[in-house]
Amino acid sequence: MSLIVQKFGGSSVRDTQRIFHVAEIIAETYKAGNDVIVVLSAQGDTTDELIGKANEINPHASKREMDMLLSTGEQISVALCAMALEKIGVPAVSLAAWQVGIQSNSVHSDARIKRIDEERVRGELNQRKVVLVAGFQAVNKNGDVTTLGRGGSDTSAVALAASFQADLCQIYTDVDGIYTCDPRIVPNARKLEAITYDEMLELASQGAQVLHNRSVELAKKYHVNLEVLSSLEKKPGTKVKEVVKMEKTNIAGVAKDTSVARVALVGLQHNPGVAFQVFSLLGKANINVDVIIQSIGRGDTKDISFTVHKKDLEDAQQVLEDNKDVLKFDHVAVDDKIGKVSIVGAGMMSNAGVAAKMFEALYEAGINIQMINTSEIRVSVLIDENDVDRAVRAVHAKFFDEP
Amino acid sequence: MSLIVQKFGGSSVRDTQRIFHVAEIIAETYKAGNDVIVVLSAQGDTTDELIGKANEINPHASKREMDMLLSTGEQISVALCAMALEKIGVPAVSLAAWQVGIQSNSVHSDARIKRIDEERVRGELNQRKVVLVAGFQAVNKNGDVTTLGRGGSDTSAVALAASFQADLCQIYTDVDGIYTCDPRIVPNARKLEAITYDEMLELASQGAQVLHNRSVELAKKYHVNLEVLSSLEKKPGTKVKEVVKMEKTNIAGVAKDTSVARVALVGLQHNPGVAFQVFSLLGKANINVDVIIQSIGRGDTKDISFTVHKKDLEDAQQVLEDNKDVLKFDHVAVDDKIGKVSIVGAGMMSNAGVAAKMFEALYEAGINIQMINTSEIRVSVLIDENDVDRAVRAVHAKFFDEP
Repeated sequence: MSLIVQKFGGSSVRDTQRIFHVAEIIAETYKAGNDVIVVLSAQGDTTDELIGKANEINPHASKREMDMLLSTGEQISVALCAMALEKIGVPAVSLAAWQVGIQSNSVHSDARIKRIDEERVRGELNQRKVVLVAGFQAVNKNGDVTTLGRGGSDTSAVALAASFQADLCQIYTDVDGIYTCDPRIVPNARKLEAITYDEMLELASQGAQVLHNRSVELAKKYHVNLEVLSSLEKKPGTKVKEVVKMEKTNIAGVAKDTSVARVALVGLQHNPGVAFQVFSLLGKANINVDVIIQSIGRGDTKDISFTVHKKDLEDAQQVLEDNKDVLKFDHVAVDDKIGKVSIVGAGMMSNAGVAAKMFEALYEAGINIQMINTSEIRVSVLIDENDVDRAVRAVHAKFFDEP
Repeated sequence: MSLIVQKFGGSSVRDTQRIFHVAEIIAETYKAGNDVIVVLSAQGDTTDELIGKANEINPHASKREMDMLLSTGEQISVALCAMALEKIGVPAVSLAAWQVGIQSNSVHSDARIKRIDEERVRGELNQRKVVLVAGFQAVNKNGDVTTLGRGGSDTSAVALAASFQADLCQIYTDVDGIYTCDPRIVPNARKLEAITYDEMLELASQGAQVLHNRSVELAKKYHVNLEVLSSLEKKPGTKVKEVVKMEKTNIAGVAKDTSVARVALVGLQHNPGVAFQVFSLLGKANINVDVIIQSIGRGDTKDISFTVHKKDLEDAQQVLEDNKDVLKFDHVAVDDKIGKVSIVGAGMMSNAGVAAKMFEALYEAGINIQMINTSEIRVSVLIDENDVDRAVRAVHAKFFDEP
């Protein structure tokens, strides 16, 4: 007998028919003799509808009250799914985060889980009940409801799997696994049988939206056996684990991200510590910076370029302009018509030719590279926004279609 | 400085505009220097929509899961209203029942409040925050959500007022007080300035739907100063209290109830204990019996008639037929085309002419009385369903319009 955590997203529970479909998957796992903990998101558009109601009343509502409001969506899902399980003869109990004892810090709307109590859930499992836990939510030390940020239900599921030392954590989605590329861009993208935590992390942070980044970090830290699979079709998904047998292609996939914008500080004085000053100012303003490039100096000035999320572009410009006297630069140049294409693969660094192969594919497609950034298992290039899909196809073909 | 509990029903918070209207009433009370605890029901049709979703999935869902589902409605209301108060500059915090510590027994869907913790609410009031509490809900000793039954938010409000020894408990509704009669039937019905707990109890149980019966019982037990008033118009409502200066009419109001049906057991054997047997069987089947009449025997048999709620009529018939051999009667006769008209007044019993005056009014209107039932402060008659509104008008006119 195993303990299995199963997570279903909002579209998987959006109506009665889908809820019964989910109940059948759960029932099958339960009837095979497993203990089952289920994590659910809010139904379909429920969260957006609640946000709409709140915005109509107060677009600047406190995050504490937003969390109180939004957490109702997941509670509705677990109660309804428990009723569906009861209907098909499977004993079940739904629990909100405060009932489980999912403890978090107090950062409303983006809380981190600190501890999960065992008693209630173990007690229910021991009575052979399926335990349905409202995802996305937690409770802080004052007894206030918190939420875990976008995609937080993935994090709830992995945290429960880690806490209860589950044998497997299954993330059910509307795709059937992790692909070498977005199949909407590259129709012959291949489904991966397995991927490492690190590759998944890089893919997730480079724009692949299947798994929430934080959930993968947590899975890696606690060695949680993850599987991403389809709630619609019954077939094997993609396993996420520590080590994966390498394929000859060396890379796990190609990702794109068109939500980035480039900022260049032109004509910076050559005084020491200026890079530190720039990025500490941006950090204080809660602006995340991704790719950073510092050009070789020309005379007594240099340029620093970096990318930020498009939504942060205005704020970043403002912060820099406000500190022009301190930072001493000539001007700020921005470009929000760019995109990022990345290749990710755990075996990349032991194979020097991988980055070159990517650049070759782009060269052959006549695509100009504006900036390059690499990590141990990733190579990213910034290119013109209009070239992104063509670049993805060219790079994918180079790695996966050539003999 | 006083502590005031204010309760607003579902129609009072059904949309953004109404929520801001409620927020203004609360803000005014708060700005006058009072501590304010607010109890809200679920918005408009939210509860019915949630019940609809549940029924689509499982019409026989466990009450435990129904409570888990339905309690989200009130949580949404308090969070949204807190946002509205924030918007107009009034510090506020919303709390679900588990956060307050509203403890109940474990009778899901019809729980009784046992205790209310003071700490959290006092702490928030001491910080000069308006405390918004989700009505209708509580939590049992296992940490499961319970609900208090129809109209349970009234009970939440009165229980909080009792527990915190509030100076006043205001129940805001879409009518502006308690009337001598339903103004839709008797256009010149008068609003009462005040009414006693007992009169209110009788009126509530005889069909006046302004206040939830249980909330009035609780208010009487703990001497809570109740006031029923309009959330739409700013004018005095009706006070509910221990003693009320009697008006010369002797009665507080006229109520009607058309949800009753009459059951007659015809030709019962004259053996002792048969009445006990009949009503203990019905009690075991959870069927509430109201008016009971036992006829004088004819020969060696007698008849017993009683009324039940229309929804229980079929069950009652079934229980009786199933036990025909034990009870030994000839046949069961039922009539669901009847209605009940009652007059209620604390001074009634000290004034022998009151009942007679009611019967006179009915006689003058040519209305035939089928059954009569009285309590210390009430006289009820059962009449033909089609005569009910005419009877109400006749009786009301007799007591309130004649000089």
